[in-house]
Amino acid sequence: GAGPGRGAAGLGSPWRWNRLGAGLSLGLRSPWGWDRLGAAIAAGTAERSSVRRGEMAKSTQLIDNEVFRAYATYTAIVLLKMMLMSLITAYFRITRKAFVNPEDTASFGKGESAKKFLRTDPDVERVRRGHLNDLENIVPFVGIGLLYALSGPELSTALLHFRIFTGARIFHTFAYLIPLPQPGRGLSWAVGYSVTFSMAYKVLKTAWLL
Amino acid sequence: GAGPGRGAAGLGSPWRWNRLGAGLSLGLRSPWGWDRLGAAIAAGTAERSSVRRGEMAKSTQLIDNEVFRAYATYTAIVLLKMMLMSLITAYFRITRKAFVNPEDTASFGKGESAKKFLRTDPDVERVRRGHLNDLENIVPFVGIGLLYALSGPELSTALLHFRIFTGARIFHTFAYLIPLPQPGRGLSWAVGYSVTFSMAYKVLKTAWLL
Amino acid sequence: GAGPGRGAAGLGSPWRWNRLGAGLSLGLRSPWGWDRLGAAIAAGTAERSSVRRGEMAKSTQLIDNEVFRAYATYTAIVLLKMMLMSLITAYFRITRKAFVNPEDTASFGKGESAKKFLRTDPDVERVRRGHLNDLENIVPFVGIGLLYALSGPELSTALLHFRIFTGARIFHTFAYLIPLPQPGRGLSWAVGYSVTFSMAYKVLKTAWLL
Repeated sequence: GAGPGRGAAGLGSPWRWNRLGAGLSLGLRSPWGWDRLGAAIAAGTAERSSVRRGEMAKSTQLIDNEVFRAYATYTAIVLLKMMLMSLITAYFRITRKAFVNPEDTASFGKGESAKKFLRTDPDVERVRRGHLNDLENIVPFVGIGLLYALSGPELSTALLHFRIFTGARIFHTFAYLIPLPQPGRGLSWAVGYSVTFSMAYKVLKTAWLL
Repeated sequence: GAGPGRGAAGLGSPWRWNRLGAGLSLGLRSPWGWDRLGAAIAAGTAERSSVRRGEMAKSTQLIDNEVFRAYATYTAIVLLKMMLMSLITAYFRITRKAFVNPEDTASFGKGESAKKFLRTDPDVERVRRGHLNDLENIVPFVGIGLLYALSGPELSTALLHFRIFTGARIFHTFAYLIPLPQPGRGLSWAVGYSVTFSMAYKVLKTAWLL
Repeated sequence: GAGPGRGAAGLGSPWRWNRLGAGLSLGLRSPWGWDRLGAAIAAGTAERSSVRRGEMAKSTQLIDNEVFRAYATYTAIVLLKMMLMSLITAYFRITRKAFVNPEDTASFGKGESAKKFLRTDPDVERVRRGHLNDLENIVPFVGIGLLYALSGPELSTALLHFRIFTGARIFHTFAYLIPLPQPGRGLSWAVGYSVTFSMAYKVLKTAWLL
């Protein structure tokens, strides 16, 4: 037949792309991991297609995609946790009556009576430090974690990274706000830091192109 | 021939997936939303491929890709807006002659004459607070927004999220710098916060893998 | 016919993926650049597939993927550099004995003897300002850079952006911490800023959907 499928046999054929994920579905490992990105993305489609036709799903493809789902889940959780710091800051600012912008104290009256609420409060400052520490640590996690999730790690390894980081940062927040005696906060910081470092190592090893 | 390529022409053919996401364009929902990532990425290709073969482009596929373009557009805009805060800070530092690093005042002379410019200025501090507030809110938007854009939302819904967030953050900056009386700034902060929260909910609902 | 299309009928056939990116392999430029995302992702796979079959790999496809690898490499480097600021801050806090949380000084004794270490130190504050400046500039780079890497730039152009930004930020850190006389730090900041701006321009030009 002269169907589109035939064309694929020709050199420079538009159909060459057809083979797209062929190697991957055979379980061959690419010498550079970013192939896995294609695999991860293709997995869902291939998977569904297989299921629809009653074939066995290739679990190794699905796993790659699950890594991205896991990344999405844990990233959303730690970013929501970070956003929570804004609410806690607002809570302490209002209950401690400690503001920084004059316009924020307008509801307490005008002039000197309001001015006295323009002050720093130890609890407010503590939450703000926790918030800044989150920014300093969660931003690298989100950025490096995305690249890590696309670098083809095993699902179990990736989950280990994401879970430890998320647990460490949640513990860090409690350790900062309660506060727990050191080295509780310091250790939880170091654990999260190490997880991000470990993911960065995997990313650099896989992607290295300087 | 009656090969699979042909079969694709038939309704409900198992080969529809070869065409890249056909199932999605029929409105079938994947049991796990990340399939849509494949669809979104493939959409442009399918679209072009279809056009080449004189077939009608499936507009619903294109929409998935348009979500990512919308995300890219609004993310670039809010990040540029955030970067603008650096320039405004520099502007106020220079016009108010309020610096924090001794080496920055060297052009004003040496010793005591320069030292007097090492001071805080209310306007500079105000811009810096606005900048930090941007970091605290735009970072979650960028991270969660990326996952949201890949979770297969309707274009109209995604645009609604992106537009409201971007508008709220631009308004927030004006409210902070003018400054507008409260609750202007507070409300614009809450609107942006809620948009990010709504996107995080969609991401977690779609991707959930703990 | 015995064309590749037929092959798709087989169980676990490598042909399933087929029509994926046919248009892309012809080197046709999409009117909207996000097609390149598909190309970038598919490139590695196509490349491998080609190699397996002894065909020449299309270097323009591989290049797209290399842009993403370059992005991953430089993003990991600048994020690790940013994370290094935490360690430098901790180093100065400990050697200068300048802490901000009471619980951090507990190892120096109780009461007044520990309280005297709750103070600000110029070196600590300097590192912290460098860290915050990193956040303000590296966050936009990571976010906009990802979109830029997916917008189909030439590898050489992309490498130029990534290398200049990374070099500028590393120089900025040295200029801040040594400190170097101005305008060393100011110029390195402006260079990094301009690179991010240039990438944002490309992203908006390619993706624009408001």
